[in-house]
Amino acid sequence: MDLLKDTVLADRQIFVEEVVGELLTRKGLTICTAESCTGGLIGHLLTQVAGSSAYFKGSLVAYHNQIKISELNVLEELIVSCGAVSKEVVCAMAINAKKKFCTDFSVATSGIAGPGGGTDEKPVGLVHLAVAHKTGVEHKKCLFGDKNRSDIKTASALTALKMLQDTISSF
Amino acid sequence: MDLLKDTVLADRQIFVEEVVGELLTRKGLTICTAESCTGGLIGHLLTQVAGSSAYFKGSLVAYHNQIKISELNVLEELIVSCGAVSKEVVCAMAINAKKKFCTDFSVATSGIAGPGGGTDEKPVGLVHLAVAHKTGVEHKKCLFGDKNRSDIKTASALTALKMLQDTISSF
Repeated sequence: MDLLKDTVLADRQIFVEEVVGELLTRKGLTICTAESCTGGLIGHLLTQVAGSSAYFKGSLVAYHNQIKISELNVLEELIVSCGAVSKEVVCAMAINAKKKFCTDFSVATSGIAGPGGGTDEKPVGLVHLAVAHKTGVEHKKCLFGDKNRSDIKTASALTALKMLQDTISSF
Repeated sequence: MDLLKDTVLADRQIFVEEVVGELLTRKGLTICTAESCTGGLIGHLLTQVAGSSAYFKGSLVAYHNQIKISELNVLEELIVSCGAVSKEVVCAMAINAKKKFCTDFSVATSGIAGPGGGTDEKPVGLVHLAVAHKTGVEHKKCLFGDKNRSDIKTASALTALKMLQDTISSF
């Protein structure tokens, strides 16, 4: 969690969305997002950057499971067997959004922002993140159980953007 | 602009997304968003409220015109003849999103957040908003030309949420 160590949530010194924007612009590549627990926050952060329309095509915020199925083509059986908050579902969301929006990269989130909805197996603060690229998909599991709802969303969005930065840098 | 008079952008006293959430919960109704210039901010604000998964189904952020056409079924001829930032396009976005997400209401935004992209006819800060409901669609044209990019996005999102509040209240 180098990112969160270096960037205080409320008063960040490093704007990862600007770094991501610079990388995408320099390489002439495009991005979209498929968001569940972040609710649109990643798209909001990406579009805070002037000129982001050159590389950001859009987002599918699939908050309800039915939208994950109907709009992101996630298989219902996958949600039933693994749960919406799982590596399998978040990777499918990222892969399918990249295809749907015809972008070079996509980033996806699925987690339990709380305060309700947690279980022993999947507690509040559990978040799965994925970044899809031309040769596959990266995944990360995070536990933000010490934070409140708003900070879980922010930490998820910033960690996802840092994953995106690292992935774009490697191409 | 009563909303913006009562609610300082950076330190709001009234959280319109909580009022909207309370109204939707009380009436057992659902909502989605179709966002262009706000980039996902309305979805983010709606999901800051605990329990919002009961009424918020999701968002389609159609930042690129191609996504407005392919994902929101806005007619290409409408974008060519009226421009993406127009009453006609934002109303089509709201109506089509409501249908796509199978919700009772939808809210849509299309505007020029700047600092680039403005013209004499359509200056930076011009924003069209729409709220679709069961009997039609409400539209509002706003001019936020005295604000910067980030504040144009925030003012658009808050004004749209206030429109939504007024519309839901009237049913």
